[in-house]
Amino acid sequence: MPRHIDTLQTPCVVIDLDKAEANLQRAQDYADAHGVRLRPHIKTHKLPLFAKRQLELGAIGITCQKLGEAEVMADAGIEDIFLPYNLMAPEKLARLKDLARRVTLAVTADSDYVVDGYAATFADSADAPLNVLIECDTGAGRCGVQTPDDAVALARRIASTPGLVFGGLMTYPPAGNSAGARQWLEEAAAKLADAGLPAKAISTGGTPDLWRAHETAIATEYRPGTYIYYDRSLVARGVATEEDCALNVLVTVVSRPTADRAIVDAGSKALTSDLLGLSGYGTVMGYPDAVIYGMSEEHGNIDFSASAKKPKVGDRLRILPNHACPVSNLFDHVHLVSGDHVVETVAVAARGRVD
Amino acid sequence: MPRHIDTLQTPCVVIDLDKAEANLQRAQDYADAHGVRLRPHIKTHKLPLFAKRQLELGAIGITCQKLGEAEVMADAGIEDIFLPYNLMAPEKLARLKDLARRVTLAVTADSDYVVDGYAATFADSADAPLNVLIECDTGAGRCGVQTPDDAVALARRIASTPGLVFGGLMTYPPAGNSAGARQWLEEAAAKLADAGLPAKAISTGGTPDLWRAHETAIATEYRPGTYIYYDRSLVARGVATEEDCALNVLVTVVSRPTADRAIVDAGSKALTSDLLGLSGYGTVMGYPDAVIYGMSEEHGNIDFSASAKKPKVGDRLRILPNHACPVSNLFDHVHLVSGDHVVETVAVAARGRVD
Repeated sequence: MPRHIDTLQTPCVVIDLDKAEANLQRAQDYADAHGVRLRPHIKTHKLPLFAKRQLELGAIGITCQKLGEAEVMADAGIEDIFLPYNLMAPEKLARLKDLARRVTLAVTADSDYVVDGYAATFADSADAPLNVLIECDTGAGRCGVQTPDDAVALARRIASTPGLVFGGLMTYPPAGNSAGARQWLEEAAAKLADAGLPAKAISTGGTPDLWRAHETAIATEYRPGTYIYYDRSLVARGVATEEDCALNVLVTVVSRPTADRAIVDAGSKALTSDLLGLSGYGTVMGYPDAVIYGMSEEHGNIDFSASAKKPKVGDRLRILPNHACPVSNLFDHVHLVSGDHVVETVAVAARGRVD
Repeated sequence: MPRHIDTLQTPCVVIDLDKAEANLQRAQDYADAHGVRLRPHIKTHKLPLFAKRQLELGAIGITCQKLGEAEVMADAGIEDIFLPYNLMAPEKLARLKDLARRVTLAVTADSDYVVDGYAATFADSADAPLNVLIECDTGAGRCGVQTPDDAVALARRIASTPGLVFGGLMTYPPAGNSAGARQWLEEAAAKLADAGLPAKAISTGGTPDLWRAHETAIATEYRPGTYIYYDRSLVARGVATEEDCALNVLVTVVSRPTADRAIVDAGSKALTSDLLGLSGYGTVMGYPDAVIYGMSEEHGNIDFSASAKKPKVGDRLRILPNHACPVSNLFDHVHLVSGDHVVETVAVAARGRVD
């Protein structure tokens, strides 16, 4: 008989395998129906087994945000990795070159400095050039060239550099404004075509606008991450329902110091301090009126004053975190469950890969 | 020749050994001068080598917040551990009993439920009873009994239970109001004495009020944690200076998309999202007017508009985080440095011990 989740030591992460599978399948079905190609971002789960499942279902490759994550996925046998990050400095570029020998790899750049670093590293690799996409700031205000003309200029530099090949455009679009990003990409693609440097790939992404991915017809691939688990922030955005959410943090009520206050054994070291614009640090499943109003590292403070039913010391609760991805990063292991039973406990292989 | 920190891959944690040592020594000197006994909280560093150094300098034992941290410290040879947490559930209580066989141990309770769990676990341990302190809510609003009378009632229950011994009182006082906590503890101690149950130990703590520890004369020990490294929040409170801060996150500028915006390769996965009431996610050392205004998991967004000097892509920066303790928890390894050179790179042994 598999272990019941009530016997797990808390706090711990439980991932509902049936929900995760349904989330992956639903997104792949949507993508297939609309001719959208998925390249899932593994930052959410950091687990080779789910990366492989995403590929089995039809993803064209995976996305990793850090070189260390990509190395873990390559070690696990993943063969096609997009690393949309500006990589630099000798030791990291040497690791990148090693990785490029092992998998089909693409990276990004948004400046001459980054391109020149790749150029120096891959100067002797004309037979196996590095595929470099240009990161475009289409409104999110993070990295990226600022205008389509800047993209054309950088594309020329990449295309004229031995050892590099210009791969196209990449953006992390502003959540909720895929239309603005689309316009940006269409203009850049047209200018690149005019310059004789057509963008082979146009990569966009983000779970918040997943169900609108098909509207950006010019994109060749979409990089959703959190869609495997969803989380409280995506429920708030209307992208999924609480029922869809596959990752919960299982906690225990360790103190009931007052009639309304409960303290659980999970604080920011288990749930993170991420608010993502929300009020409170998560949803207590089954207690919709409870408010996780405060946290220290090892304690979560919950106000049950608006809840008719209040838990006792020793009761276990399930918390839906605001943001699933960084929670995966805080746990060495997660429990894969079906209903209330543990199917498997797995190491979070790509956890803590900071560089 | 030791490695220069400019050759480290970023993001990474660098800990200035000379500053850490000076911080420990200064606090111990203060404690010795005032007859205060220190029992440092290891949650900040999570490193056996620093726990041992704290003991060498005169600490009477250490404090751990989770059983898993205490197990790591016991494995490393630490012999006196206070675990001020309500522990419950069979597997965890079995681990607690194992730990109690290996080290001089004390725990806390703030309810009958928790005491009864200890009682059942240690019922056969009359020869080596578990030392149980009562956690008191002296205003911080987390765990703890609410009144001195509640403390007396719970002390009676502990003292009358075979296998347990009543150890005294523990509080995590509200930062900046050690006077309120003192009054609470004095009243409870008097009532306990009247009841024939004198508090052998009275444990209080917190780096914010470290330099006022001697004012709570009734306390028998003080549990500072962050004082080994300090951080931006403690500089803001006036407890230490930026120069005292021993832990920095070393980052690289990976993008300069606009004249004023810089993106670094450290986001919430390196710095955490902790604000602790501050504005911005850290201080960029050497750039006092820069503002770390936004973060995603792997990117930090910095506004240099108010800075005359602005960094270039590829430049390295040192960031003083808002909160040092959870940063230690995010890195598998930290670099111990002296000046600009790495003395040793060590595994953060008690990192990720969530339960």
